[in-house]
Amino acid sequence: MKRMAIYPGSFDPFTLGHMDITQRALNLFDHVYIAIGKNKGKDPLFTAEERKIQIENVFRDDSRISVIIFDYLLVDLMKELGTNVIIRGLRAVSDFEMELQMASVNRVLYSSSESVFLMTSDKYSFLSSRMVKEIASMNRENLKKFVPPAVEVELYKKFQS
Amino acid sequence: MKRMAIYPGSFDPFTLGHMDITQRALNLFDHVYIAIGKNKGKDPLFTAEERKIQIENVFRDDSRISVIIFDYLLVDLMKELGTNVIIRGLRAVSDFEMELQMASVNRVLYSSSESVFLMTSDKYSFLSSRMVKEIASMNRENLKKFVPPAVEVELYKKFQS
Amino acid sequence: MKRMAIYPGSFDPFTLGHMDITQRALNLFDHVYIAIGKNKGKDPLFTAEERKIQIENVFRDDSRISVIIFDYLLVDLMKELGTNVIIRGLRAVSDFEMELQMASVNRVLYSSSESVFLMTSDKYSFLSSRMVKEIASMNRENLKKFVPPAVEVELYKKFQS
Amino acid sequence: MKRMAIYPGSFDPFTLGHMDITQRALNLFDHVYIAIGKNKGKDPLFTAEERKIQIENVFRDDSRISVIIFDYLLVDLMKELGTNVIIRGLRAVSDFEMELQMASVNRVLYSSSESVFLMTSDKYSFLSSRMVKEIASMNRENLKKFVPPAVEVELYKKFQS
Amino acid sequence: MKRMAIYPGSFDPFTLGHMDITQRALNLFDHVYIAIGKNKGKDPLFTAEERKIQIENVFRDDSRISVIIFDYLLVDLMKELGTNVIIRGLRAVSDFEMELQMASVNRVLYSSSESVFLMTSDKYSFLSSRMVKEIASMNRENLKKFVPPAVEVELYKKFQS
Amino acid sequence: MKRMAIYPGSFDPFTLGHMDITQRALNLFDHVYIAIGKNKGKDPLFTAEERKIQIENVFRDDSRISVIIFDYLLVDLMKELGTNVIIRGLRAVSDFEMELQMASVNRVLYSSSESVFLMTSDKYSFLSSRMVKEIASMNRENLKKFVPPAVEVELYKKFQS
Repeated sequence: MKRMAIYPGSFDPFTLGHMDITQRALNLFDHVYIAIGKNKGKDPLFTAEERKIQIENVFRDDSRISVIIFDYLLVDLMKELGTNVIIRGLRAVSDFEMELQMASVNRVLYSSSESVFLMTSDKYSFLSSRMVKEIASMNRENLKKFVPPAVEVELYKKFQS
Repeated sequence: MKRMAIYPGSFDPFTLGHMDITQRALNLFDHVYIAIGKNKGKDPLFTAEERKIQIENVFRDDSRISVIIFDYLLVDLMKELGTNVIIRGLRAVSDFEMELQMASVNRVLYSSSESVFLMTSDKYSFLSSRMVKEIASMNRENLKKFVPPAVEVELYKKFQS
Repeated sequence: MKRMAIYPGSFDPFTLGHMDITQRALNLFDHVYIAIGKNKGKDPLFTAEERKIQIENVFRDDSRISVIIFDYLLVDLMKELGTNVIIRGLRAVSDFEMELQMASVNRVLYSSSESVFLMTSDKYSFLSSRMVKEIASMNRENLKKFVPPAVEVELYKKFQS
Repeated sequence: MKRMAIYPGSFDPFTLGHMDITQRALNLFDHVYIAIGKNKGKDPLFTAEERKIQIENVFRDDSRISVIIFDYLLVDLMKELGTNVIIRGLRAVSDFEMELQMASVNRVLYSSSESVFLMTSDKYSFLSSRMVKEIASMNRENLKKFVPPAVEVELYKKFQS
Repeated sequence: MKRMAIYPGSFDPFTLGHMDITQRALNLFDHVYIAIGKNKGKDPLFTAEERKIQIENVFRDDSRISVIIFDYLLVDLMKELGTNVIIRGLRAVSDFEMELQMASVNRVLYSSSESVFLMTSDKYSFLSSRMVKEIASMNRENLKKFVPPAVEVELYKKFQS
Repeated sequence: MKRMAIYPGSFDPFTLGHMDITQRALNLFDHVYIAIGKNKGKDPLFTAEERKIQIENVFRDDSRISVIIFDYLLVDLMKELGTNVIIRGLRAVSDFEMELQMASVNRVLYSSSESVFLMTSDKYSFLSSRMVKEIASMNRENLKKFVPPAVEVELYKKFQS
């Protein structure tokens, strides 16, 4: 039986930190769904569809990854996909508190859901999508230190003019 | 002499966690003012007036509770009501830091003000109004696990169409 | 009906921070029991009996304070005294986590127990009994900044020779 | 291929919180090694051998669990067992920091080691072995709320006289 | 050789806490650049130019202070000014995590950059520009407790009508 | 005028993390005193005198470093040396809280003392002397990843037999 897990997030954009967590998840599970939350409220840099294409490009040759977009409750997506495992990356304390809160809510909504927290590599522990966007808006030289090439090129285009 | 306390917040919406803290406060004080801050900047789900009616419905038969709306400094409301006790619920660490900051500011503005922190029941420690709104916008089946019935029905109406 | 609360701790020694919390508690409750835990494991600077005398000296003229020693579960002392309110001072984050843990345990052991957290004055937020002991062991000039006079004189004697 | 994980700790004693994490781990892995660290420095309540017997009694009928004692580096045990997955339970913030530190050290010592953090059930989030020992030393009535029956009986004997 | 440091921030408005950190920095460095970040996204209370004039008024007679506006990466400003030292004030835990993140990013972007963290005086540890703005919008009596006179008068004008 | 700073600690043993902080301090100050606290209570792995020799070996050719032993209050040492700057490395949150506490106490004891916090390199952020001792007691292969060679050889000897 294939073991599956879901890795939800905004991924706006998908960073090297996200890639690190995905690869760690692939050491534990047979298949990982990267699930892009289509958050109505926020004004994203890339549309969910653009992000989907970017992440698919990052994992182009890896059939163990599927990228999906969802705009409803995570637990409903989990039931649909038949998986009860949520992957989350952990960095700092404020992350941690928020993550425990979300994991608790998910347990209330779907009692068999299980959040599995993996630790980002030390060298990406400072990385966040928000910071990447801020840096990209001001300077395009260092982006390869933060995002995979397939994302870098899109960030470059976005802030070119 | 009646002991009074004020429980300020946005309460957008009032959750089972807020109800838990209110009931704990009633074990310590004779009268609790639930004070709805009318925050200009934010765009609320329910107007302050709607929230006032909802909370009054929750405590319909309890004369020890008054619900009020304020749009000025909390310490000015406290002086007006003749109480120097602020009730606050504590959950996570980020809460805690922010709460200590606000309590310090309130002491600077009104030196005899005293913030009394009560611990939310473990089973509501993950609850926040923001999360309730997010969940309600996507799925209306589980709301009774998060809010009292008088609020659930209003959330249901709000997101119905 | 008199409102009573219990303020438990090691108080080895009783600091200006503890005094600050006690006075804040007296604004909320009619009587405060300062309850000195007689912890078997630890090797205290002052015996529980010495600490009791010191704290009684600090509050010599205040009949609203009683000082007691206990060497069993706090919740059993609470039932004996007929009070369900625990006073705790809050300073830093590590404090806070530990405090929430203890409050949870106390609720499991005695469901109607309620922990009331008060915030230490900013100017004592750094104070701990452990630090006072360390400083007193090396330098006796600054102790009045950390402990009440009735404790200072005893610390002075203890480290004199 | 069997997926294995190691759940290291002191387990002095093994609590309902540890049991909760073990069961969550069994939903993710085929076999879980509960590895009791034989810490030279500390003075334990139960010997490592006593703890091993207690935990084996807790999981008497479950062949997916093995209990082992080790007194060397965790990463050396992992290489010996042929597993690179460490299970850790997460509760509070101070936990979390310490856990990230240990996970980093383990990655330095054994680069393919992966720490998997699971969240304790809300209702055990306050539980620690240290607290259980403190409570057991003073009161034996409530122990079943904190430890499995096979441990409760041994705690009872230990503190009986 | 003159030792220089840069103290970046929004300073909207510049508070007594910022002044405290600036003065501490002047005990360590010969010259301090106060660098006002012109953040496009946010809607500030005062324009960057207004803030520049206010801060210059605060330090009117002190030639060791220069106030500058920048709207690009901090590390690029540092290279331009020929300084690799960033001054940051520390208050609470959430601050701290965010600060470490930014310091890490700055090291990635400019490896010789060094973040120097100074601790705000206890009596300003609760202060934030956001809180000052909130208070100023509702009540103008207490502003001198939070901001220097040169800023107070401008806040007063801003919220007068 | 030479700018001096004092870097106090136990340094039992001195790690690569301590070395990283020392080197960062040397970019900011002309001379750094590494001050080994001779803590009576604790039972150290190396005597203060052994640690002094080890650290002197680490910085053998650098006249900007002096290593000293003290067994009294840090602020008294500072007055003696004529410096008011304390260097401290920052890693995790629990560190941070403790550090702010100590810095506050030092300000109370010596008002012009200033604590300067530097951030450890990401790659040493997990390192602590306590962990190094634990690892060294069990396995001597990886010590060069944690301590400078001059310390490694002494750790090796200590745990050899």
